[in-house]
Amino acid sequence: MGSVSNHTILTGDRPTGLLHLGHYVGSLRERERLQHENRQFVLIADLQALTDNADNPEKVRNNVLEVAFDYLAVGLDPKLTTIFIQSLVPELAELTMYYLNLVTLARLQRNPTVKDEIRLRQFAGGVPAGFLCYPVSQAADITAFKADLVPVGSDQLPMIEQTVEIVRAFNRTYHRAVLVEPKPLLSSVPRLPGTDGKGKMSKSLGNAIYLGDSADAVSDKVKKMFTDPGHLRVEDPGVVEGNPVFSYLDAFDPDLSGLDAMKKHYRKGGLGDMAVKRRLLEVLQPALEPIRERRRLVAADPGQVMELLLDGSRKARAVAAQTLDEVRKAMHLDYH
Amino acid sequence: MGSVSNHTILTGDRPTGLLHLGHYVGSLRERERLQHENRQFVLIADLQALTDNADNPEKVRNNVLEVAFDYLAVGLDPKLTTIFIQSLVPELAELTMYYLNLVTLARLQRNPTVKDEIRLRQFAGGVPAGFLCYPVSQAADITAFKADLVPVGSDQLPMIEQTVEIVRAFNRTYHRAVLVEPKPLLSSVPRLPGTDGKGKMSKSLGNAIYLGDSADAVSDKVKKMFTDPGHLRVEDPGVVEGNPVFSYLDAFDPDLSGLDAMKKHYRKGGLGDMAVKRRLLEVLQPALEPIRERRRLVAADPGQVMELLLDGSRKARAVAAQTLDEVRKAMHLDYH
Repeated sequence: MGSVSNHTILTGDRPTGLLHLGHYVGSLRERERLQHENRQFVLIADLQALTDNADNPEKVRNNVLEVAFDYLAVGLDPKLTTIFIQSLVPELAELTMYYLNLVTLARLQRNPTVKDEIRLRQFAGGVPAGFLCYPVSQAADITAFKADLVPVGSDQLPMIEQTVEIVRAFNRTYHRAVLVEPKPLLSSVPRLPGTDGKGKMSKSLGNAIYLGDSADAVSDKVKKMFTDPGHLRVEDPGVVEGNPVFSYLDAFDPDLSGLDAMKKHYRKGGLGDMAVKRRLLEVLQPALEPIRERRRLVAADPGQVMELLLDGSRKARAVAAQTLDEVRKAMHLDYH
Repeated sequence: MGSVSNHTILTGDRPTGLLHLGHYVGSLRERERLQHENRQFVLIADLQALTDNADNPEKVRNNVLEVAFDYLAVGLDPKLTTIFIQSLVPELAELTMYYLNLVTLARLQRNPTVKDEIRLRQFAGGVPAGFLCYPVSQAADITAFKADLVPVGSDQLPMIEQTVEIVRAFNRTYHRAVLVEPKPLLSSVPRLPGTDGKGKMSKSLGNAIYLGDSADAVSDKVKKMFTDPGHLRVEDPGVVEGNPVFSYLDAFDPDLSGLDAMKKHYRKGGLGDMAVKRRLLEVLQPALEPIRERRRLVAADPGQVMELLLDGSRKARAVAAQTLDEVRKAMHLDYH
């Protein structure tokens, strides 16, 4: 993906927890690269986080800063990437209101991503209307900055489709090509599993390695990682596929031929799990060390980080306000 | 209702057509009275009008001014009443986004007023999400100004209930009594029927007398009004109930004992429809004359009327922004 350049990119995260190695491999590392030759906006989606955390706003508030620490730790540079807080760009709420009229309730209920997430969450008192509407809010996020590229996992493709539909409906209904159709930028990296090898990393499963984890904590977590459950003795042949230690090596080991040799050895038998884990720590610790150190530094001055976020939000607002102006003009709502 | 005072009142209209005698009797006349001893906000609900007119924004835009002409014509005084355009107060969109998380989809789908309106409109391509959500947007309108009184017809009571539920959910969830519960101010005046005696006045039925109608047009429309279909000859006994001419007299004739005598005479027989209509014109024309004249004057300078609306919207924004500040503080979204 080294050739991605001259695009406008919108991406971000819900501030509901610390970012972990899964985020790093799946998106953060790529964002650091993309910021050099593209115009990149990264939003901390507090509004969206509230759609299923309305009763826990303090969690959202606290994680806004934590996520910002993670961003700066991995090398997102506020001079190159506009990092902003979603709720500080009220133009996004206005755009959402306009777009809600261009989407039917039935269409929102058909969204496969939202359907999956509703099943997962099992909202006790019923699905909040805001949760059902959040794909429209995402369309506002994307179109406000006229992003033409949105990095996503394949499970998020329906969100891009929804945005494209809204863009087309808007431009058709109001007879002006105001909004820009985004394209997905699909990650070429397979999703990093949790340390238990079961599904993705998550706080609730206790299977995540966080960007802020100390070297000792990383070491502990790697030593306790699941491997091939059939690989009981060193001399047994082992399975590489679905073995999380090898998944992590795929993501972090720069020595591809060495890794290839290790896989062969492991498959044949005679290579112990501890040896593989040692190699993982050998490549993982130096990759995490500068991130951890930068995170420690920026987290020591949360006031300054908030200043960066407020400044980024002001810049984001200026761009979104320009789009909103065009939107309102196309809708004949430019009162003067 | 002469005793209503010291309240904060929020009311308004969708700008989808000219206001007529039904609006005048049902709400406008009352608003003129209420503005003297209450703090009154009247919104021209362009956002809400778009929820079922997304494909016809020019209609909405044009009617914003027409409705403003009607308001000024009936004596709403911008010094006493803050008249504003909904979409020029973006704080309302923000509040709507926050409130959408406190209402379930199922609850919105149960709203009887919305259900009726959906049946009535028969949206060809499906119900727009914005339309289903508009009660939440109304809750934002009401609570942004901390209105404690909302003039409504009985069919609109479910909207107030929805707002009260949101107020309670918000104050409970965020542990602060930020929002104010509104009470309905039920109109004591029966709804004025259309000139055909069938249901309420509406443009599509061609049964409305508009505030801007010329004296000749009013005269024509009254002469063609439906009466008691069984009252064929002057000497026949006639029915007063459901006879639109008498409904209008109830609304406009200040001489109550004279009207009572007329009703008796009509019931007994011997009073012709033309005589009753003459009396109606006798009281209606002088009531409409000053309204029509003021409307003509203000409509001659639409630029000045827009200035009034922009000024009212600025004032409304300042109040809504204060509420939004409190809302965001309670939600821990006061970044600084």
